[in-house]
Amino acid sequence: MDSLQLAARLRTFLPSEAVLHETEDLRPYECDGLSAYRQAPMIVVLPQTEGEVIEVLKVCHAAKTPVVARGAGTGLSGGALPHAEGVLLSLAKLKRILEVNPVARVARVQPGVRNLAISEAAAPYGLYYAPDPSSQIACSIGGNVAENSGGVHCLKYGLTVHNILKLRVVTIAGEILEIGGESLDSPGYNLLALMTGSEGMLGVVTEVTVKLLPRPEKAQVVMVAFDDIRQAADAVANVIGAGIIPAGMEMMDKITTRAVEEYVHAGYNLDAAAILLCESDGTVEEVVEEIRRIDEIMNESGATEIRTSRDEAERLKFWAGRKAAFPAAGRVSPDYYCMDGTIPRNKLAQVLSGIEALSAEYGLRCMNVFHAGDGNLHPLILYDANKSGELEMTEEFGAKILQMCIQAGGTITGEHGVGIEKINQMCSQFKTGELEMFHAVKAAFDPEGLLNPGKAVPTLRRCAEHGAMHVHRGEEKFPELPRF
Amino acid sequence: MDSLQLAARLRTFLPSEAVLHETEDLRPYECDGLSAYRQAPMIVVLPQTEGEVIEVLKVCHAAKTPVVARGAGTGLSGGALPHAEGVLLSLAKLKRILEVNPVARVARVQPGVRNLAISEAAAPYGLYYAPDPSSQIACSIGGNVAENSGGVHCLKYGLTVHNILKLRVVTIAGEILEIGGESLDSPGYNLLALMTGSEGMLGVVTEVTVKLLPRPEKAQVVMVAFDDIRQAADAVANVIGAGIIPAGMEMMDKITTRAVEEYVHAGYNLDAAAILLCESDGTVEEVVEEIRRIDEIMNESGATEIRTSRDEAERLKFWAGRKAAFPAAGRVSPDYYCMDGTIPRNKLAQVLSGIEALSAEYGLRCMNVFHAGDGNLHPLILYDANKSGELEMTEEFGAKILQMCIQAGGTITGEHGVGIEKINQMCSQFKTGELEMFHAVKAAFDPEGLLNPGKAVPTLRRCAEHGAMHVHRGEEKFPELPRF
Repeated sequence: MDSLQLAARLRTFLPSEAVLHETEDLRPYECDGLSAYRQAPMIVVLPQTEGEVIEVLKVCHAAKTPVVARGAGTGLSGGALPHAEGVLLSLAKLKRILEVNPVARVARVQPGVRNLAISEAAAPYGLYYAPDPSSQIACSIGGNVAENSGGVHCLKYGLTVHNILKLRVVTIAGEILEIGGESLDSPGYNLLALMTGSEGMLGVVTEVTVKLLPRPEKAQVVMVAFDDIRQAADAVANVIGAGIIPAGMEMMDKITTRAVEEYVHAGYNLDAAAILLCESDGTVEEVVEEIRRIDEIMNESGATEIRTSRDEAERLKFWAGRKAAFPAAGRVSPDYYCMDGTIPRNKLAQVLSGIEALSAEYGLRCMNVFHAGDGNLHPLILYDANKSGELEMTEEFGAKILQMCIQAGGTITGEHGVGIEKINQMCSQFKTGELEMFHAVKAAFDPEGLLNPGKAVPTLRRCAEHGAMHVHRGEEKFPELPRF
Repeated sequence: MDSLQLAARLRTFLPSEAVLHETEDLRPYECDGLSAYRQAPMIVVLPQTEGEVIEVLKVCHAAKTPVVARGAGTGLSGGALPHAEGVLLSLAKLKRILEVNPVARVARVQPGVRNLAISEAAAPYGLYYAPDPSSQIACSIGGNVAENSGGVHCLKYGLTVHNILKLRVVTIAGEILEIGGESLDSPGYNLLALMTGSEGMLGVVTEVTVKLLPRPEKAQVVMVAFDDIRQAADAVANVIGAGIIPAGMEMMDKITTRAVEEYVHAGYNLDAAAILLCESDGTVEEVVEEIRRIDEIMNESGATEIRTSRDEAERLKFWAGRKAAFPAAGRVSPDYYCMDGTIPRNKLAQVLSGIEALSAEYGLRCMNVFHAGDGNLHPLILYDANKSGELEMTEEFGAKILQMCIQAGGTITGEHGVGIEKINQMCSQFKTGELEMFHAVKAAFDPEGLLNPGKAVPTLRRCAEHGAMHVHRGEEKFPELPRF
């Protein structure tokens, strides 16, 4: 079936304006948040109901046409990059909040609902949805499920997988699966966790039931300055080591705080080599006690300044700086490349030294801003795409950071997903047997490989061609990289 | 290959005493904690190393012989019931603690290590492993992973799946998979969660890396009495509704407290229709504050007595009663049948009324003792196997309780697994499409169905023969049961 025939077939049950296939109509869908990769799809469809999603999948299944599902398109790993000969299935119009149940503390929503919109709908009941990616104003809950998104508060409140209870999923064959339940455990294999973070490779989510939490009575954030980034890293380990799980625990290095401060005037200490933002939330008494203990540990860890937010306005100002770090990078450099490796917390200081050494080696600046509490790094490599060869150098620098994360016992992604961006690094992260198992799971759901082909899990041939040396749990090492 | 040939083949790499096939040697392995079902295996093997496990699986794979893995055999759903023509693979001798790392806060252990032994090994560092099934003195971590075990403290600290980081798993083909990692998220599909609770159907676990938590500075438990079991149920909802997640939140009805009190003298209020045990843990200040709030809510919920443990001895005495509830049932009745349904917390009062009505209808007493905070019921039906027909009536009563749990939006198991016991109820819990997906996942790992065949996931034919009416999320109802 060619694209015109397929479009005609889709228009038998979708309104004409919900099936796009003119070049100019396709352009907005060419990329997601990773705009370095672009590809127009053959057709874009915009269903409005679950029934329409089922029909779209049945048609594509029958026509053996690839399908790439897309939420708000804010993803940073190219997971929603279209397939040239495929249908881009936008879930943007499935955006109804179906139920907010304050007694059961759940909300049932369609996949196109924005992350923040859930908390807004729950606010009248004093409830909210905990995971808060930086893009929460725009990103959709369906995309959050596909990427198992985190955010500043996931250290205490968990990732998407820890905050959802049920899913309705449509298989490539157009069948509905109801997965999970409202209780702590479910019989049968844990398909809820399997589906979460599967990057649109196993099915299309049409409904999400999320947990709602009571909004904490109080939240307060401490800004702590250090003369040495390694001391800051150790302070993070010391806080966690004392049994405290802060609501958020973020680190920024000097190059970041300076870029941010010029942009949003968050009130950061600009002389510090690194600052930590450490949030406590709970009842008033809990927060007072926790902040006291955090202060104590920070002092013992060599902090040069500790400043506690005096009111909600100052708390929000401290966070505004952190949340604006990515756009701030865009102001100080023509281009930047955001990485997303995760490492054990006790390796933070070593890996930061390694990044510093690589930065010098490549002559490229790197802003370090990250979820320190859970060891989730977001190095932003600053470069200029107009300078010949600089993008390639940046990619190489980035790949080495990820290899270093694997060697340190970590992983190549914390919360952004693999998508198309990190697919080669998967060859380093996993052994052949593990990749084969991923493919077998994929085949259980989608035997013909029509859902988001080419993403997240590399073929064994790709790994052979990529020639990646397998680096697993630091057992084998790249000789040119710092050792752990 | 007959059993003698297979035994000889296994003895080429296992010492003679590690391959049992004489009738008297097989008898101890005939059942697990669900002793109503008994079946001798063809052969029992007791490997001591991962290498031996791999060889056993390779031999069984080549010989197309079923393999049932077994931990300590404390499971309550018959998950380790042997296969008459299969090998029972005991992991009991893989019981080394390989590493306790207080800095990374993890322990790496073999599957035969007892749950409590992990906490004992971590104790010198002030750390412990949180999930605490009632059988924790005896049960093994490998079995905990297979069943996704919970325990009294899982309300606050989560089930096994929330407390493990990595697994080494041997596939039926004898290949090693390394699954998960020490960071919050991992790339690729979430095989760690998929494997956890898969009841030995997908692979054999040979190493588990668990999270260790700092032992709380203080723990205190409140015993609260109510004149009406429904009030107690509502009090549970009120505590959770106020945003408090107690370390444990257990309920016992009058028949249970009386049976327990005669046995262990826990100091319970014996006039109460129901008592709650509600634990708070954390820093001294946190516990004081949380207990104050719990007291307030219990009073508002109509408590007739609130007693806070005055010291550690009294705290342990309160818990000793709860932990002895099952043996106490064995003292007041010749036999008892323990169920394990889970329901949304806000349905507690309704389902308890339903159980009461069924108890009257069948003329069988039922002790209610359960993890109230997470809605995980453990009704103990008291019966006498020597009275003709009473076991059958008990099974029917039990099946109706589980159907009621499904109708209330819950599930047929909270933490004990499906095993052989609840396999027919899976036909009520899931639709054909969902069961088909489970089978497809199973086939991805074990295409020939050699691992623990006949457990956990019923065949579609079995469901057709069982004739179960599909009751899903209360959408369809059994006319003879109370409505929700």
